[in-house]
Amino acid sequence: MPAKYRNFRNSVPWLLLILEAVFIVLFYFLSPDEKSISMSEFSYPAFQDVNHMVVFGFGFFLMFLRRYGFSSTAFNLLIIAFGVQCSMLIENLLIFLHLRQNELGLRRITKATVRMTAVVISTGAVLGKTNPIQLIVMTIVELIFFQISQWLSNALLKIPEDVSMMHVHLFGAYFGLAVSFHFSKLSQDNDKNRSTPKSYLLSMLGTLFLWVFWPSFNSVLAVNNKNKVIYNTYFALAVSAVTAFILSVLTTKDGKLRMTHIHSAVLAGGVAIGYSARSINYPWIAMVLGLLTSVIAILGSSCLQRCLHPALKIHDTSGVHFTFGLPAVLGALAEVILVVINNWTELARLGYLVMTYIGAFCLTISVAWVTGFLTGFIIKLKPFKTTSVPKCSDDQFFWEFPHLAVGF
Amino acid sequence: MPAKYRNFRNSVPWLLLILEAVFIVLFYFLSPDEKSISMSEFSYPAFQDVNHMVVFGFGFFLMFLRRYGFSSTAFNLLIIAFGVQCSMLIENLLIFLHLRQNELGLRRITKATVRMTAVVISTGAVLGKTNPIQLIVMTIVELIFFQISQWLSNALLKIPEDVSMMHVHLFGAYFGLAVSFHFSKLSQDNDKNRSTPKSYLLSMLGTLFLWVFWPSFNSVLAVNNKNKVIYNTYFALAVSAVTAFILSVLTTKDGKLRMTHIHSAVLAGGVAIGYSARSINYPWIAMVLGLLTSVIAILGSSCLQRCLHPALKIHDTSGVHFTFGLPAVLGALAEVILVVINNWTELARLGYLVMTYIGAFCLTISVAWVTGFLTGFIIKLKPFKTTSVPKCSDDQFFWEFPHLAVGF
Amino acid sequence: MPAKYRNFRNSVPWLLLILEAVFIVLFYFLSPDEKSISMSEFSYPAFQDVNHMVVFGFGFFLMFLRRYGFSSTAFNLLIIAFGVQCSMLIENLLIFLHLRQNELGLRRITKATVRMTAVVISTGAVLGKTNPIQLIVMTIVELIFFQISQWLSNALLKIPEDVSMMHVHLFGAYFGLAVSFHFSKLSQDNDKNRSTPKSYLLSMLGTLFLWVFWPSFNSVLAVNNKNKVIYNTYFALAVSAVTAFILSVLTTKDGKLRMTHIHSAVLAGGVAIGYSARSINYPWIAMVLGLLTSVIAILGSSCLQRCLHPALKIHDTSGVHFTFGLPAVLGALAEVILVVINNWTELARLGYLVMTYIGAFCLTISVAWVTGFLTGFIIKLKPFKTTSVPKCSDDQFFWEFPHLAVGF
Repeated sequence: MPAKYRNFRNSVPWLLLILEAVFIVLFYFLSPDEKSISMSEFSYPAFQDVNHMVVFGFGFFLMFLRRYGFSSTAFNLLIIAFGVQCSMLIENLLIFLHLRQNELGLRRITKATVRMTAVVISTGAVLGKTNPIQLIVMTIVELIFFQISQWLSNALLKIPEDVSMMHVHLFGAYFGLAVSFHFSKLSQDNDKNRSTPKSYLLSMLGTLFLWVFWPSFNSVLAVNNKNKVIYNTYFALAVSAVTAFILSVLTTKDGKLRMTHIHSAVLAGGVAIGYSARSINYPWIAMVLGLLTSVIAILGSSCLQRCLHPALKIHDTSGVHFTFGLPAVLGALAEVILVVINNWTELARLGYLVMTYIGAFCLTISVAWVTGFLTGFIIKLKPFKTTSVPKCSDDQFFWEFPHLAVGF
Repeated sequence: MPAKYRNFRNSVPWLLLILEAVFIVLFYFLSPDEKSISMSEFSYPAFQDVNHMVVFGFGFFLMFLRRYGFSSTAFNLLIIAFGVQCSMLIENLLIFLHLRQNELGLRRITKATVRMTAVVISTGAVLGKTNPIQLIVMTIVELIFFQISQWLSNALLKIPEDVSMMHVHLFGAYFGLAVSFHFSKLSQDNDKNRSTPKSYLLSMLGTLFLWVFWPSFNSVLAVNNKNKVIYNTYFALAVSAVTAFILSVLTTKDGKLRMTHIHSAVLAGGVAIGYSARSINYPWIAMVLGLLTSVIAILGSSCLQRCLHPALKIHDTSGVHFTFGLPAVLGALAEVILVVINNWTELARLGYLVMTYIGAFCLTISVAWVTGFLTGFIIKLKPFKTTSVPKCSDDQFFWEFPHLAVGF
Repeated sequence: MPAKYRNFRNSVPWLLLILEAVFIVLFYFLSPDEKSISMSEFSYPAFQDVNHMVVFGFGFFLMFLRRYGFSSTAFNLLIIAFGVQCSMLIENLLIFLHLRQNELGLRRITKATVRMTAVVISTGAVLGKTNPIQLIVMTIVELIFFQISQWLSNALLKIPEDVSMMHVHLFGAYFGLAVSFHFSKLSQDNDKNRSTPKSYLLSMLGTLFLWVFWPSFNSVLAVNNKNKVIYNTYFALAVSAVTAFILSVLTTKDGKLRMTHIHSAVLAGGVAIGYSARSINYPWIAMVLGLLTSVIAILGSSCLQRCLHPALKIHDTSGVHFTFGLPAVLGALAEVILVVINNWTELARLGYLVMTYIGAFCLTISVAWVTGFLTGFIIKLKPFKTTSVPKCSDDQFFWEFPHLAVGF
C-alpha cells in the first residue's frame, strides 16, 4: 500500500513542522516577563513527579495492546512534548489578555503538564485507532476547550484554579469517549487487540508508577493543606487497591483475578479524591470514598462493556470510562455532599455553594461531550485519515521493524 | 478443580472485605488529632522515595519466577496497601494509649511504609508458595509482633525509634525463614520455579530501583546527620556492588557471573549499614562494611543453599536469608564494634551500651523466629489452605489469562 | 574454550579486588574534613535524580542489543559503583593539593556521578565489544583525563566549574569514538548485533527516564538561576522530541518511524542546551536550539553511519556520536554565539570571552581524542583481551544462563 505510506509521510511531518514553527514564533511574542512576579516558591521535585508520571507512567500504562507497544509509548511522548508547548501558549495568551495572573515559569509548566493529563486520558479511549495527525489535532482542540471550560469555571462560578484543575479526569474521559464514538468498533476477535502476559506486565509497571505518584499529582497545585491532600489521597488509593482485589475475584466467572480490573480500579480512588482531598478532615472519609470508587470502577467495567457501550457503539480501548470517568463523577458528587455537610448551618451560603459545584461539573462534562463529539467528527474526515481498519493497533504501520521480530 | 476455585472466591474477598470494613471503623475512632503537634517539618520527597522503593522496587525485585510475574507484583501491591493501613492503626492505638508520641500524618505513613518492608521481605521467603489469604494473615501478625518488639526495644532498652526501625530487615528475614520452614520445599526440578532471562531482567530493574533508593530508605527517619547517613550508605552500596561482581566470578563453577548473586549482593551493603550509618565518621569504614557484607551474602548464598537449608528443610525462594538476614546480622555486629571503639574511654557506659545493642538484637531475632514459626504453623492449617503443591508458583491459579500466552 | 574462561576468572576479580582495596586505603588517607565547610545547602532530591538517571536510565538506554541485556545493565552498574569512588578520590586528592575547594560530601558525590556520565557515554560507543577489565581500565583513565581537562579549563581559562562540567557529553562521546576506532567493526550481518522489539521497548524505557530527568541533570550543579536552567532545558527537550518524530518520518525509506532515531534525537536537545541554559532568557531560543540539535542528530545519524564511520573504520554501537557528540558541538557553538550577542557592546571583553569558550571547547575535544585513542590502543593489547570477535555482544560469554532461555 505505497499510497497510504506516502500519505503518512506527506502529512504528519509537515503539519508538525509548521505547528512547531508557529509555536516558536508565538513564544517569541508571548513570553510573560517573570521579573514582575513576586518570587513565590515552587518546588521542582513536585513538578518532576508529575512529569515523570505523565511521560513514563501513562506511557507504560497504555502499553497493554499486543502489537502497539512502540506506538503507545512513543506517541504518548510526542503528544506530551507537543501539548505542553501548546498549553503553555494558551496560558501565556490568557496572561497577556489579563484574564489570568502571571506566574513563575516552573509553575506554568506544571499546570501545562497537569492539563495534558486530560489529553493523555482521551487518547486512551481511542488507543490504536488513531494516527498521529488525528492525535495532534485532538490535542490542540482539547487543550483549547479545556482552558475555556476552566476559565468559565474560574470567572463565572468563582471556582479556585487548583480545584477546577482537578476536572482534568472528567474532561479527559468524556472528551475521549465522545471522540471514540466516531471510530468504528474493532471486533473483539481482532487478533491485534489482544494482550499478552508481557504487555500486561509492562502495563502493570505503568500502573504502579501512577499509583505511587498520584499523591504528588493531587497535591502539586494545592496552595495550602498540601500534607492533608497527600495523606487523604494515599488512603483513598490504598483502600481502592484492596477493594480492587476483592471485587475482581467476586465478579469474574471462575473466581480469578483479572488484570484489567486491577489496572483500572487501583487508580480509581486517586481520581475520585482529587476534588475533595483538601477538605476531608478524617482519613475514614477518604477510605470510604476509595472503597466506593473502586466498586463503581469494577461494576462499571462489567456493565458498561456488556450493555451501555455496545448499545452506544462506543469502543473504549483502555477503559477510560470506568477508570477515570465514573470515579471523577463520583468524586464530584462526594464533593457536593461534603460541602453540604460542612456548611449545614449556613443555609444561605450552602445553596450558592452547591449550585456552584454542580454548575462547574455540568459545565465541564457538557463542554467535554460536545467538543469531543465535534472533534471526533472532524478528525474522521478524509484529510486526516491514514489508517484503514485492519491496520489498526499495529506498530508495523507506523514503525520500521527490526527483522527479528520473533517472540514479541 | 472447581472446588478449589470456589474456595478461593469464598474466602479471600470476604476476609479482605471484613478486615477493610473493620479498618475503616477503627480509623473513625482512632485518628489522632494533628492540631496538637508542634509543626515539625517532614519532607514529602523522602516519603515518596520510600513508597516508590517498596511498591515498585520490591514488586519487580520479586519477579524472577518464570510464571509468577503477575502475582509477585500485584500481591506485593495488595499487601502494601493493606499493611500500611494496618500498621497505621497499630501506631494510632499506641498513641491513644500514650505509649508513643503523636506525630504528623505524613511521618506516620512513612513509618508504616518502612515497617511494611519487613513484611515484604518475609513474603520473599515464601514467594510462590502462599495464597493471598495466608499473606494477609501473615502481614497482620508480623506487623503486630514487629511493633511489640520495637516497643520493647524503645521502652526497656531505650533504643531510639529511628534505630530500632532499622531492625526491619533482620525481623523480616528471620520471620520469613521461620514461616517458610512449614512450607514444603518445592523440588528444584520444578519447571515453574525456574527463571527466564526476561524475568531476570525485570528483577534487575527492581534491583536497580532498590539500589538507587536505598540511601533514601536509610535516611528517611534519621533525625539529624541525614547527609552523613546518605553519604555512608552510598559508599557501602557502591563497594557492595563492585564486590558482588568480584565474588560472583570467583565462586561460580566456570568463572561466569550469576544473576542471583548480583541481585542479592549489591543490596547487602545498604542493609548492613542501616544500623550504623549515622555514627560512621569516615567513608572507608562504610566501604569495608560494604565489602564484608557482600562477601557474606555471596558465600552465604553458596553455603546456605547447599548445606544449611536442605538440612533444616527450609526453601527460601528469593534468598532473603543471605540478601537481608546475614547482612543485617553483620550490620548489628558492626554497630556493637563501633560502639566499643567510640566509647573506649568510658568503660562504665560502654558495658551498658553494648548490652543494650546486643539485647535489642537478640530481642528482635528471637521474637521474629518464635512468632514466625507459630504464624507458619497457623497459616498452614486447613482454613487458610487453597493451593496444592503442583499449583505453586503459577499465575494461572490466581489470574484469568489472556488467550495468547505464547512466548512468556 | 576453557582457556578463555579461566582468563576471565583469573583477571577480572583480582584486578577489581586490588583496586577496591587501594581505594579503601586511599579513602583512609584522603577524606577531607567536612567540619571546615561553611554549611551550604545541597539538595538530596537533586542528587537522587542524577543518580537514578545514570544508574537506571543509562542502564536501560543501552539495552537495545538482542543478546546483551544482562551485560549492558549490570556492567553499567559496575562501572558506576566503581567509577564514582575513583572520581571522588581524584577530587579528594585535588582538594588535598589545594587545587580545588573543599565541599560537602553530598555535593562531591553528585559531581562524581555527573562526571561518570562521560564514562557511561563512552562505553556506549564500544558496547558489546569490550570486557569488564577493559571497561574498568577505560573508566580510570577517562576520569583522570577528564579531571585534568576540567582543571585546565578552570585554572587557565577561568571557566566556572558548573560550566566546564557540562563538557561531559563532549568528552564522553569523542573519547568513546576514539576508543572504538581500535575495536574491529562488527559485521552488520552479525546476528547478535540486532535488536528485537522487546529490547527496543526496554531501551525506550531508559530513554523516557533520561528525557524526564534531563532538566535535573542540567540544573543539579547550577549555583543560581536553577529555575531558568530547568525551564530552558524542558523546552529544548520538548521541541527536540517533536522534531525527532518529524525527521524520522522524512528520512526513512518508506516514511515510517525508526526507533533508533527517536531514542537518540529526543535527548539531543538536552545535551545541547547544557552549556547555555543558564544564560538563555527567552524560551524561543531554547526551542530553536532544540530543533536544530534534533535535525543534526538525525541527519548526522544517516550521514555518519553511511559515509564517515565506514571510511574511518569506526563502529559506534549505540550511536553516541550523533546522540551526544554532535549535539554537544552544536551546544558549544550556540554558547559562543550567545556570548557574542549578549556582549556585543563591550568589544574588548567579547574577544576574550569568545577565545575562552572556544579554547575550552578545543581543549576538551582534543584531550578526549588523544587520550581516547591511546586508551583504545592500550586496552586492545594482549593482557586485557579476553573476548574473541565472534563472542561479542553475547551475554552467554559472561553470564551463567538459566536453562530455559526460549523466547528471549
